[in-house]
Amino acid sequence: MVDKNISADNSDKAESKKAAKKEAKKAEKASKRAEHKQTTVQLDTPEEGDVSLGKYGNLPLIRSESNSTRVASYVKDLNKSVSGQTVWVRARLHTVRARGKQCFIVLRQREFTIQVLINVSESVSKSMVKFSSGIPKESIIDVEARVAEVPAGVAGCSQQDVELVASQIWVVSLSAPQLPLQIEDASRPEKSEDEEGLNIHVNQDTRLDNRILDLRTPTNQAIYRLEAGVCRFFRECLMKRDFVEIHTPKIIPAASEGGANVFTVSYFKGSAYLAQSPQLYKQMAIAADFEKVFTIGAVFRAEDSNTHRHLTEFTGLDLEMAFQFHYHEVMLTIGDLFTEMFKGLREQYQHEISIINQQYPAEPFTFLDPPLVLEFNDARKLLAEVGVDVGEEEDFSTPTEKLLGRLVKAKYDTDFYILDKFPLAVRPFYTMPDPRNPKASNSYDMFMRGEEILSGAQRIHDPEFLTQRAKHHGIDISTIAAYIDAFKYGCPPHAGGGIGLERVVMLYLGLDNIRKTSMFPRDPKRITP
Amino acid sequence: MVDKNISADNSDKAESKKAAKKEAKKAEKASKRAEHKQTTVQLDTPEEGDVSLGKYGNLPLIRSESNSTRVASYVKDLNKSVSGQTVWVRARLHTVRARGKQCFIVLRQREFTIQVLINVSESVSKSMVKFSSGIPKESIIDVEARVAEVPAGVAGCSQQDVELVASQIWVVSLSAPQLPLQIEDASRPEKSEDEEGLNIHVNQDTRLDNRILDLRTPTNQAIYRLEAGVCRFFRECLMKRDFVEIHTPKIIPAASEGGANVFTVSYFKGSAYLAQSPQLYKQMAIAADFEKVFTIGAVFRAEDSNTHRHLTEFTGLDLEMAFQFHYHEVMLTIGDLFTEMFKGLREQYQHEISIINQQYPAEPFTFLDPPLVLEFNDARKLLAEVGVDVGEEEDFSTPTEKLLGRLVKAKYDTDFYILDKFPLAVRPFYTMPDPRNPKASNSYDMFMRGEEILSGAQRIHDPEFLTQRAKHHGIDISTIAAYIDAFKYGCPPHAGGGIGLERVVMLYLGLDNIRKTSMFPRDPKRITP
Repeated sequence: MVDKNISADNSDKAESKKAAKKEAKKAEKASKRAEHKQTTVQLDTPEEGDVSLGKYGNLPLIRSESNSTRVASYVKDLNKSVSGQTVWVRARLHTVRARGKQCFIVLRQREFTIQVLINVSESVSKSMVKFSSGIPKESIIDVEARVAEVPAGVAGCSQQDVELVASQIWVVSLSAPQLPLQIEDASRPEKSEDEEGLNIHVNQDTRLDNRILDLRTPTNQAIYRLEAGVCRFFRECLMKRDFVEIHTPKIIPAASEGGANVFTVSYFKGSAYLAQSPQLYKQMAIAADFEKVFTIGAVFRAEDSNTHRHLTEFTGLDLEMAFQFHYHEVMLTIGDLFTEMFKGLREQYQHEISIINQQYPAEPFTFLDPPLVLEFNDARKLLAEVGVDVGEEEDFSTPTEKLLGRLVKAKYDTDFYILDKFPLAVRPFYTMPDPRNPKASNSYDMFMRGEEILSGAQRIHDPEFLTQRAKHHGIDISTIAAYIDAFKYGCPPHAGGGIGLERVVMLYLGLDNIRKTSMFPRDPKRITP
Repeated sequence: MVDKNISADNSDKAESKKAAKKEAKKAEKASKRAEHKQTTVQLDTPEEGDVSLGKYGNLPLIRSESNSTRVASYVKDLNKSVSGQTVWVRARLHTVRARGKQCFIVLRQREFTIQVLINVSESVSKSMVKFSSGIPKESIIDVEARVAEVPAGVAGCSQQDVELVASQIWVVSLSAPQLPLQIEDASRPEKSEDEEGLNIHVNQDTRLDNRILDLRTPTNQAIYRLEAGVCRFFRECLMKRDFVEIHTPKIIPAASEGGANVFTVSYFKGSAYLAQSPQLYKQMAIAADFEKVFTIGAVFRAEDSNTHRHLTEFTGLDLEMAFQFHYHEVMLTIGDLFTEMFKGLREQYQHEISIINQQYPAEPFTFLDPPLVLEFNDARKLLAEVGVDVGEEEDFSTPTEKLLGRLVKAKYDTDFYILDKFPLAVRPFYTMPDPRNPKASNSYDMFMRGEEILSGAQRIHDPEFLTQRAKHHGIDISTIAAYIDAFKYGCPPHAGGGIGLERVVMLYLGLDNIRKTSMFPRDPKRITP
């Protein structure tokens, strides 16, 4: 749900002129009730004569009442080098277990964990240990503690060399005691051979229904950091080559006849549609002299496809580029873009990749520099060698694409390659036909682990030839007049392509479902949370 | 229009199995027709005995038939340093004028222009001069020429020290001869005192109806390059501070009661809505331990506001950040973000700013480092000094905001400032009340040239307090259950805000209409092109 109030950032404020005194009084009452509740919780625990009084409990709700220069340490930085120091840490209570006069807490921060020991002592009371052992998992706590070396190592924590010996424990934000899923279960390798435990797994729908919890697993923390890296490499690589970032509208005036695969939007008294691609707008930017453009944004597909790799809304990494003589100028630029991206991931995201691999093991992603370019007919030959015949003007089926991916991998040892010169018959009307082979076109797909992640082409930039080709495809010219008109006032030859971000991340990591790489996935059956 | 075929990038190809021979034959025919057309045009001009034969004409449609290593020069690089050299340039024919045996062309590339001289000579025929003088404006041409110094300077061109003496002229892409608007007219300063000419201006709707042409003006070339810079500075500044980029869904399951200001989408057999803000999802990312997040994406507002500063779709620069003790940790981070952005623009975009100022003069944007922070009550006092009384729990009206902007500018010499501690009564239910002043809240707006460009706040992160505040606002709790639930399993205190990209660029440049900073603007009356 998004209440209109929830969406009020940056909207114009209603020019409220109402006498607002009533409001203020109500707010005061509500705020007092809240404080009261907090106080009550806090008073539940400390007792008379408690040596730890004032060293633990529930903090009042943080309302920015006061400031502090106290600096919290990050869990990842706690190791032998700070041994003996007293630190403050704010993190989640991952697990807690009481044993006699001791209580062991594992604190979690992103993918990092550390053990905290609360031990009855001169300054730590039984009540404080009892309080600590009763804090619900997933609560956020502030801990003051001494960093102590653990020569034997702490099993199961990312910080193995040290533990924290607590002197203060405060609850910053309490979690409900009943969790709809356990972070440990959601973090378990899918094919784990843990014979001890129940080996519980959390299914995809339970994860997505409780996405806030699910996203807290080390794997998910790593996946979305890596995904941000893919966007960063995409942009950096293109900006270095003087591409200009643009923003294209998602609300568009017309869909194709019948509006297949397009979502309809009520637009004031009329209707509009959600863009399936920024392509027209990228091409308009080229016709408007921006020469090289890219855009990152939401793309919508109203396809009722319930597969491991389809979403109804995904993030498109799109680019379009004018060229001088040959569309290969563009195709090879895109190829280099992928090479830079793969190198960047390999060099800068090894930590994330290894965390993800612990839960979802996968072969490391291989690639060649420069990337392998195969022509469609070469690919047909490779397939023919293993007895699979594909016609000269036929498209590959999805299983054939996967088989081809395996053949290419076996022969060239690369998980990424470019397939050039697709049959004209299987490409959209705006694709430039190959001038030398009437059955081929100036178009290409790019593949990762045998699945298509980019489709692109030289586009026809001449309005008359475009009209001919559209008619040839049986398209009603009146429905695409605006598209054709875009090329009326001179347009340089150009080519481009669109990449699905979530697919790239899924395939790079060898994951089995695109819902694992979309933070809040949308498919025909899911639009929540 | 966007035909479904036009949107086929990255979609799965239909597994076409049809015999496609018919297709190939038709394509061949169409392609022959196109070639024929090209040839015809070309044959219109060269004549028997023409000494320039093969040095000018219409190039065949560039279909990547052949490649070349010929490197084209950029117009901006043509100056005295390359005087005497022979270069190839591909650019637009900006203007053309014949005078006896000479023809003068001005070539335009983005905001750069250069004069080309085609002079009847031993190697340049009359026919070539005639052909050149007949090329329609806005056509894209390839010119081979010698760079020649012009000691007297070339008036009206960006490249004043040199001109090009042409030896070859080829039309790469022909423009229709009738243009719906002239680039010179669209480029003219709005208050120009050009007494010679007709002083024609192009109105906003004509510009937007013919956006491809309009975007070719030097001013528009500069505006959208600067806009890309704003996004870049926003990201760079936040990534440096360990913010993680996320992507939030635009299709959302529920709107507030009645769905005011929300666009409805047909979603398979049901309905969905377009997100008015990524706020819920940013907050969920915080509750999911991402700590600091940002997102750049489309934001939708179904408001029937037809003003200079409202769009129904705009680009949101949004961020959300967990803090330790006080929301000022976040507010001041956002303040620093703006300072870095303004410094970046001043240092790296002076060329663009000066081009834009030639057409739309504006005072340079001023700012303080660190930025000025005023409390709401201080602002009320400033206003009271000039006789404008605003109640303690009232919001500022738009005219009052603008007046305040002028007062602040006069007193502090800054076009940017932060207004902190807005009255609780005028802010949404999820805003954290000020713990010390029951009439105030932990919320802030930021202003550029007297107009609001960011609204933000500490959000309530406690589900019970949030429920109380929602009830107090008369909101049906069932409609926001998902929002409230997001905080059930522990959430750190956090604050954030949303920035409208187009507004930032408009106000930074002192422009008068947000349609000047949205490449393809959407408002209640316009969803084209």
